[in-house]
Amino acid sequence: MQYFPPALERLTEQFARLPGIGHKSAQRLAFFILSQPSEAVDAFASALTDAKRLISLCPVCQNLTEGEGPCAICSSPKRDKSTICVVASPKDVVAIERAREYEGLYHVLHGVISPMNHVGPDDLRIKELLARVSEGGVEEVIMATNPDTEGEATAMYLSRLLKPFQVKVTRLAYGIPVGSNLEYTDDATLMRALEGRREM
Amino acid sequence: MQYFPPALERLTEQFARLPGIGHKSAQRLAFFILSQPSEAVDAFASALTDAKRLISLCPVCQNLTEGEGPCAICSSPKRDKSTICVVASPKDVVAIERAREYEGLYHVLHGVISPMNHVGPDDLRIKELLARVSEGGVEEVIMATNPDTEGEATAMYLSRLLKPFQVKVTRLAYGIPVGSNLEYTDDATLMRALEGRREM
Repeated sequence: MQYFPPALERLTEQFARLPGIGHKSAQRLAFFILSQPSEAVDAFASALTDAKRLISLCPVCQNLTEGEGPCAICSSPKRDKSTICVVASPKDVVAIERAREYEGLYHVLHGVISPMNHVGPDDLRIKELLARVSEGGVEEVIMATNPDTEGEATAMYLSRLLKPFQVKVTRLAYGIPVGSNLEYTDDATLMRALEGRREM
Repeated sequence: MQYFPPALERLTEQFARLPGIGHKSAQRLAFFILSQPSEAVDAFASALTDAKRLISLCPVCQNLTEGEGPCAICSSPKRDKSTICVVASPKDVVAIERAREYEGLYHVLHGVISPMNHVGPDDLRIKELLARVSEGGVEEVIMATNPDTEGEATAMYLSRLLKPFQVKVTRLAYGIPVGSNLEYTDDATLMRALEGRREM
């Protein structure tokens, strides 16, 4: 009985290890790789090893960074070092930076507390956050975890841990998203938007 | 404005070049790679370059093979060299081998004639098939392209090309699939099953 060449099977297995890619898709991707010129395949292979080799976590904010020492945001003299915005993932840093509004620093937890997925406080970069706050100079910590159950729970947990340090702990505002439609806004969001109403 | 580290952006771009993977999925895969141990990432990278470096086409049947010379099927003394089964892709060889019924050789076209996708006869391994048949010793060529419009057209086209060589050209039987249900069988298949009925 003849199967595919072993090198093709190995490549298929590697693709199938990626999340959300089943065996059939993995096989399709492996065939696609064979159809590509050698240079393109080499570029893919070096992008893989480079990403792993070059990218590390910033020793201060735990965000992804290339090279030694603190990341570009932590080492920028323009950023306000008295404010730390706590997010779950590096993607959230990019999202907030895109808004061009925030001038402070970040702290990336790399996850949220989630008993269902066996993620406890010790699996997150919480120690590092407490160390930063205990060093002094921090006036406000903004909890910018997602507005879902796990994000809420993580924000609550952290705000309790931060209480002894006597810093202001805030949470992102809840409300109706800009450009959305009241008719289609869910009850919980409308309730929060009413609670948080402001004088015009 | 701070984006992801350049090495992460490059890896995301590489994933996004794969068929069926958009930018968001590519980013998710790139983050997954960062979360993996170095050895796993190195194994993925070498699977990519190995597949491209080690796999070539069998000079006889054009199927994928590793190493120099004819593939395992073409060089096996157990296979009947007077019969060639013509398929569109290496996946079809694996499917037919799985049935453990066929003892002859194969010829892989690497596609079917498809004017819609700009695939003409010159893009397929047809010259190589004609060369094999013209060398003599071939008694039967079985057309095992898919039973769809393009597969049919390709089989018809090849059978005309093979006419001058005076070999028997056959086509896989059409009929109701084993284990299926008459009630849900489409009209065209039922018609072909009636046409091809055999005495019990």
